[in-house]
Amino acid sequence: MNTNNKTLTLGLFGFGCVGKGLWDVLQSTHGIKAEIKQICVKDRTKQRPLSDTLTADKFTFNPNDILLDESIDVVVELIDDASSAYAIVKTALQRGKAVVSANKKMIAEHLDELIALQQQYSVPLLYEAAVGGSIPIIRLLEEYYDNDLLRSVEGIINGTTNYILTKMSTEAQSYTTALKSAQELGFAESNPHLDVSGIDARNKTSILCTHAFGVIVPPENIVTIGIENISSADVVFANNRGYTIKLIASIKRVDSALTAVVAPTFVPLDSQLAFVRNEFNGIELQAAFSDTQFLLGRGAGSHPTASAVLSDISALTYQYGYEYKKSKQPDIPTFSNKEKISIYARFANEDDAAEFPFSEIHQWFSIKADGEVKEGTVVIGSVEIDALQQILSTSQPNTVQPLSIAIAQLTTESLSTVFLRQESLAF
Amino acid sequence: MNTNNKTLTLGLFGFGCVGKGLWDVLQSTHGIKAEIKQICVKDRTKQRPLSDTLTADKFTFNPNDILLDESIDVVVELIDDASSAYAIVKTALQRGKAVVSANKKMIAEHLDELIALQQQYSVPLLYEAAVGGSIPIIRLLEEYYDNDLLRSVEGIINGTTNYILTKMSTEAQSYTTALKSAQELGFAESNPHLDVSGIDARNKTSILCTHAFGVIVPPENIVTIGIENISSADVVFANNRGYTIKLIASIKRVDSALTAVVAPTFVPLDSQLAFVRNEFNGIELQAAFSDTQFLLGRGAGSHPTASAVLSDISALTYQYGYEYKKSKQPDIPTFSNKEKISIYARFANEDDAAEFPFSEIHQWFSIKADGEVKEGTVVIGSVEIDALQQILSTSQPNTVQPLSIAIAQLTTESLSTVFLRQESLAF
Repeated sequence: MNTNNKTLTLGLFGFGCVGKGLWDVLQSTHGIKAEIKQICVKDRTKQRPLSDTLTADKFTFNPNDILLDESIDVVVELIDDASSAYAIVKTALQRGKAVVSANKKMIAEHLDELIALQQQYSVPLLYEAAVGGSIPIIRLLEEYYDNDLLRSVEGIINGTTNYILTKMSTEAQSYTTALKSAQELGFAESNPHLDVSGIDARNKTSILCTHAFGVIVPPENIVTIGIENISSADVVFANNRGYTIKLIASIKRVDSALTAVVAPTFVPLDSQLAFVRNEFNGIELQAAFSDTQFLLGRGAGSHPTASAVLSDISALTYQYGYEYKKSKQPDIPTFSNKEKISIYARFANEDDAAEFPFSEIHQWFSIKADGEVKEGTVVIGSVEIDALQQILSTSQPNTVQPLSIAIAQLTTESLSTVFLRQESLAF
Repeated sequence: MNTNNKTLTLGLFGFGCVGKGLWDVLQSTHGIKAEIKQICVKDRTKQRPLSDTLTADKFTFNPNDILLDESIDVVVELIDDASSAYAIVKTALQRGKAVVSANKKMIAEHLDELIALQQQYSVPLLYEAAVGGSIPIIRLLEEYYDNDLLRSVEGIINGTTNYILTKMSTEAQSYTTALKSAQELGFAESNPHLDVSGIDARNKTSILCTHAFGVIVPPENIVTIGIENISSADVVFANNRGYTIKLIASIKRVDSALTAVVAPTFVPLDSQLAFVRNEFNGIELQAAFSDTQFLLGRGAGSHPTASAVLSDISALTYQYGYEYKKSKQPDIPTFSNKEKISIYARFANEDDAAEFPFSEIHQWFSIKADGEVKEGTVVIGSVEIDALQQILSTSQPNTVQPLSIAIAQLTTESLSTVFLRQESLAF
């Protein structure tokens, strides 16, 4: 039993949506032995929501008021800027303070070093809120699935894109309308690039690779396709065939190879992932013994994210730290982009489609112009992940880019049964 | 960080479905530092699946070969018989051995004493496999939702009944046919009483009350209605109105009152719980900050259950134990059967329906005989849980029992919008 529980003194960086949420949660919840001593913020002009408990002297503009305060045990880092966050987290760990962070970009980009720092200074860094919001996926991978043989982790881990794709699929909204509605409701930033490009999901996928399979995969090695080019035509094509399109982070182990791809993906309409709607996140695990496991929860938002941060703080009261167990086990897989995947690709015309480096073509549709749907060509075929990455990289100026791409199915076997039936193309 | 990892020596009681599964899993998984030294079984005549590693000398018929063996750190109790299990677990704890058990009946019936024994002898008893099979619900309630303010835990926590109800709903099978098919596939015991009566789910619900809300609720205090009386007519009635019937364990906190009921329940067809099919289990949590969380996984079976047992064993390698945190927090709710719930009840005739102690009637349907559907009366109305328990108890010989009962909705507000529309009764 854990008997060393003590009251933790927290230093908080950032008082935006999640920071305020954490303050609220700490005021309302009982039983956690933690109090915020100091809050470091950047903007000196911003009005703060002061109260009897949240007095002006709680705030500081000087990071050292927290980092050099010996009485502060835990630094809670909840700022947007990844490079400032990195500097804060690194200094905090070096000064022997435990750290809780929700900054997936910073963590994904420095994971190797952050693991080393934790070991060197014998202090934990927890970041449950960085992946899947309120879904306790990292804790479960570390503590509960630590000895099962995982086969795959697949999930919807970005609420913004899921909200947009849900509206496009269930309310036949255009991408532009759905994005606007997401922004109005606060589910998308005014600059939604990090979300709609898949980069946010890619950072989270990188973190999941480490906790699920013990492999450090730098985010830039993960082939990532955003949802910006997904049109209503693509969504209708999928729906008519019993699928919906979701932005899926897919991490799969086959023998000793580990693949990870973030891309719009055809998901069967009767699957759990299709059922993850609007801003929710959902993650499906396949393991040798526990078989299928599925987790659903709010992927973002002030209170859900704060509740994940709070769970990390609570875990620190009994000296919990990630052990990165999977990376210490034998038979760690090797990350590879050599696997083939089956994709759906829509091209402006047949000539463009013919230039695409498919290793195998399963279906070829010529689209006739009809109302808003323009003429084009849809091909479902296999491509090596590496070749796909080459096409997508801007360093290849003369390559023809498809208008849109989605993962059709990750194995060609199941695809052949689904798509090789001859179907007429009815958008 | 947890640095005290050591290799655990296990003594296993029982070598049935789950015991064999645990043996398999331990052979295949890497990284866990645990080995089975001795397996205690009862039946001297049964053939055991011996192998190079599973040699005959692993087996014993004498419990003391495990209980008195000082070199055995952990007793893994996987036998069917709850009273023998209790004796084994109690002795093991008294002898300072950690215990892993999957016996929900034994745990639910002795939870108070088992908590005291853990404290008295400073040894942990873990039982993740007892509730929700491979779903890590107890661990999450203990470790992750320990500081969120839980409002409700609702779930499908019995795979047998869920398989039967799924077949009745999606394939229009009769209860008898669906039960037979469950038995043939191994999803139901030859004597399915404990499952179909709801008693198995009731035991699990009792355990969940403790970990979710800090309240010890003896199983017999939980109003429990089985699925034996649910007919095709009930299933069709629900389906026609956008619902399906599931055996739901529902634990809800309203202010300082805690209610828990296990009963067939009308679940909206587009909800996550409706989507839990066949032998799967699914649990939905509602909390103040993390909001809706949903977990799905295999609720039973050799390997899924063994994987939960293995996760407990793995947790023991770093001295993990349940802290029953919720029971130490302020504001623990009080268990109450005084709340009103809205139920669907089908009676043989109007006279029987008139005798039922509804506190309010929302809808009243008279059913005309039509093919296999017999004449009868369906009433949707409110009843106090206590009054329902009185009716259901066999100690009231002169009370008219409804032919079938299901929870319609737990709040009358939402019910009034759903059911008070005048609808014709079309089975």
